[in-house]
Amino acid sequence: MADIVSLHPEEPRGLLLKDRTENVLRLTLNNPPTNALSIAVMEALLAELDAIAGMTDIRVVVLAATGQVFSAGHDLKELTVHRDDEDQGRAFFEKTTRLAADLMLKINGLPQPVIAEIDGLATAAGCQLVASCDLAICTDTATFCTPGVNIGLFCSTPMVAVSRAAHRKQAMEMLLTGETIDASTAKDFGLVNRIVPKQYLQQVVNKYAAVIASKSPQALRIGKEAFHRQAEMGLEEAYAFVTNVMVENLLLEDAQEGIGAFLGKRMPEWKGV
Amino acid sequence: MADIVSLHPEEPRGLLLKDRTENVLRLTLNNPPTNALSIAVMEALLAELDAIAGMTDIRVVVLAATGQVFSAGHDLKELTVHRDDEDQGRAFFEKTTRLAADLMLKINGLPQPVIAEIDGLATAAGCQLVASCDLAICTDTATFCTPGVNIGLFCSTPMVAVSRAAHRKQAMEMLLTGETIDASTAKDFGLVNRIVPKQYLQQVVNKYAAVIASKSPQALRIGKEAFHRQAEMGLEEAYAFVTNVMVENLLLEDAQEGIGAFLGKRMPEWKGV
Amino acid sequence: MADIVSLHPEEPRGLLLKDRTENVLRLTLNNPPTNALSIAVMEALLAELDAIAGMTDIRVVVLAATGQVFSAGHDLKELTVHRDDEDQGRAFFEKTTRLAADLMLKINGLPQPVIAEIDGLATAAGCQLVASCDLAICTDTATFCTPGVNIGLFCSTPMVAVSRAAHRKQAMEMLLTGETIDASTAKDFGLVNRIVPKQYLQQVVNKYAAVIASKSPQALRIGKEAFHRQAEMGLEEAYAFVTNVMVENLLLEDAQEGIGAFLGKRMPEWKGV
Repeated sequence: MADIVSLHPEEPRGLLLKDRTENVLRLTLNNPPTNALSIAVMEALLAELDAIAGMTDIRVVVLAATGQVFSAGHDLKELTVHRDDEDQGRAFFEKTTRLAADLMLKINGLPQPVIAEIDGLATAAGCQLVASCDLAICTDTATFCTPGVNIGLFCSTPMVAVSRAAHRKQAMEMLLTGETIDASTAKDFGLVNRIVPKQYLQQVVNKYAAVIASKSPQALRIGKEAFHRQAEMGLEEAYAFVTNVMVENLLLEDAQEGIGAFLGKRMPEWKGV
Repeated sequence: MADIVSLHPEEPRGLLLKDRTENVLRLTLNNPPTNALSIAVMEALLAELDAIAGMTDIRVVVLAATGQVFSAGHDLKELTVHRDDEDQGRAFFEKTTRLAADLMLKINGLPQPVIAEIDGLATAAGCQLVASCDLAICTDTATFCTPGVNIGLFCSTPMVAVSRAAHRKQAMEMLLTGETIDASTAKDFGLVNRIVPKQYLQQVVNKYAAVIASKSPQALRIGKEAFHRQAEMGLEEAYAFVTNVMVENLLLEDAQEGIGAFLGKRMPEWKGV
Repeated sequence: MADIVSLHPEEPRGLLLKDRTENVLRLTLNNPPTNALSIAVMEALLAELDAIAGMTDIRVVVLAATGQVFSAGHDLKELTVHRDDEDQGRAFFEKTTRLAADLMLKINGLPQPVIAEIDGLATAAGCQLVASCDLAICTDTATFCTPGVNIGLFCSTPMVAVSRAAHRKQAMEMLLTGETIDASTAKDFGLVNRIVPKQYLQQVVNKYAAVIASKSPQALRIGKEAFHRQAEMGLEEAYAFVTNVMVENLLLEDAQEGIGAFLGKRMPEWKGV
């Protein structure tokens, strides 16, 4: 079922599987056994997301992973090799962390909603990836941690996403202890939206994707962008901003069509992109 | 029981019922069947809140609604009619969204605490109204949603209040899917404080109102204002700010009376307003 | 077991018990019966924390209390006495609130993680103390409140810490009603990390402390500081900041040792401080 023909043939083939069903694109991390976010994987993901951003017929992106581990975060072997560089690895470390930050910001800034589908362990930058997606749906055996403290490397970049998704003390507990939390705790913490039995994971994710994909793409794009922008504003500034967003949205054809359809008790036909 | 003699006789009569019991004022949306936040309803509410802000004998405001729907948000028919305006409705849309933002900011800035009492569906700007009140108490059959995506109009203004009440991913789920959540989920998300069986709703809300109304109005006013101001500050700035608030509060007569009563094991008699 | 020989012999003796076990320092409020945060107690705590900040062999601080009350907040009798001052107490009130703010900011800024161990009631500035610690572990009979409204003195300083730990409406409920919440509610609100039966409280806290103390002190120090700094930034600024933090952390010897140990499947030996 997976379409492994990359949009970017120059990418390392197979690190990222793609499977498109109608207007939902499933990207599957395929760097077994840990789906480490190596430079190659991050670059492949970034390239895909860049391409997707311009594909108006893609409405929702699902980010999944093959195997038992959603993602174990950065590739520690790759990092370690570069300690022998002339600069003790500084340039490579900068490249790695910059790429990771770019990746998370790209998910945030992508016009399409991104749903993380987690079956297995999501650690460090892998946990950050989950926290950075708009929605996260996992199996009841999925687990999460930010274990950088165990290797002398505090999960400072994952912290940005995790501490914005969860309560402060709960984020701190994950970061300071490095211990693994189960799916139910992750839901309590605000890291995931829904827990489903393994055999229904993909079905439930597909249902979420289909529901979202059925909405006006104009409205989704406007809303996702506005969400992240207003989140960083004070209340009055936020209201001034979204008031304007709302007026412009009301003037677009999809709002006219959607409201008309609602009042006319018929299904809307989205025109805009 | 409801006192429908408006403070402002020029207002459309009956869109907002008022019922005062001692120092608690109950405002009831009365725009059946959906309690839509039409221009008239929002203007009536704003006018009442303006008047209440100066009424030192009102200590708590309860915001309730008649019928099966707490509020379905903006009046879509009213919005649609104005698409025939020369400007395609822009001026009217601006008026509507500006009024809604003013209403939410007014609730925030009102010296008195505002408790939302929800029995039924609160959607879109109706859900925003709930999220904007200081406290929210609902029945176990109350439901909540931000379904703008269904009509091509992302709930960008409700998002401001909802994303400040709930965790980020949970707010996103409501906004992207447009699906309706039940009372229990709304409580998990942080949108409501308490769920009660329908037959006890008003009794519990009245109990909350009476408890709060029994406190020093000086302290409540100072505290509610300080809460919203410090919420937008960094930690050091917030502490510098509230330190000053605390000193001024300590020097007021109600703090002297309250602390004296506590130490003397007697009931305080609040003097200030 | 408690070591009451103060590091600072000039301090009021016994207001703060100290008990060091390896690299974990337990500070116990010992101002019975309410462990009020009098000037003397706050100054003693601040002095200890100042000293601890420079003690690289202390890795974790536990903040506990003797008796039935974790802390009842400021010393109301002490405050009241100063109403007879020439300035009606203003200077003393400023000193008290400033000290309290300094104390909370000091906990935040302490290089070592601080765990609150709560068995009993934590009210007002006592509740703020809990909210200000990095982690909080309590018994199932612990209770929490911010009851300033009951004495005409809104809990404006506690509000800063409580509203950053909990959802907005839940913080508001505590602040407006002044009512006491149980341990389970406090956990739901985000104020505590874990609830344990009384007979296991110290054991569980010690376990948490030992787990954290086993991590790289370099990583913990870097991470705790970065956590609080990035929390006040916008997303892009936060990522730019932590990216740099991560690179510097990667170049430190503990990260090299930790990653090497992980890849070599051996226990790390932390060198840095």
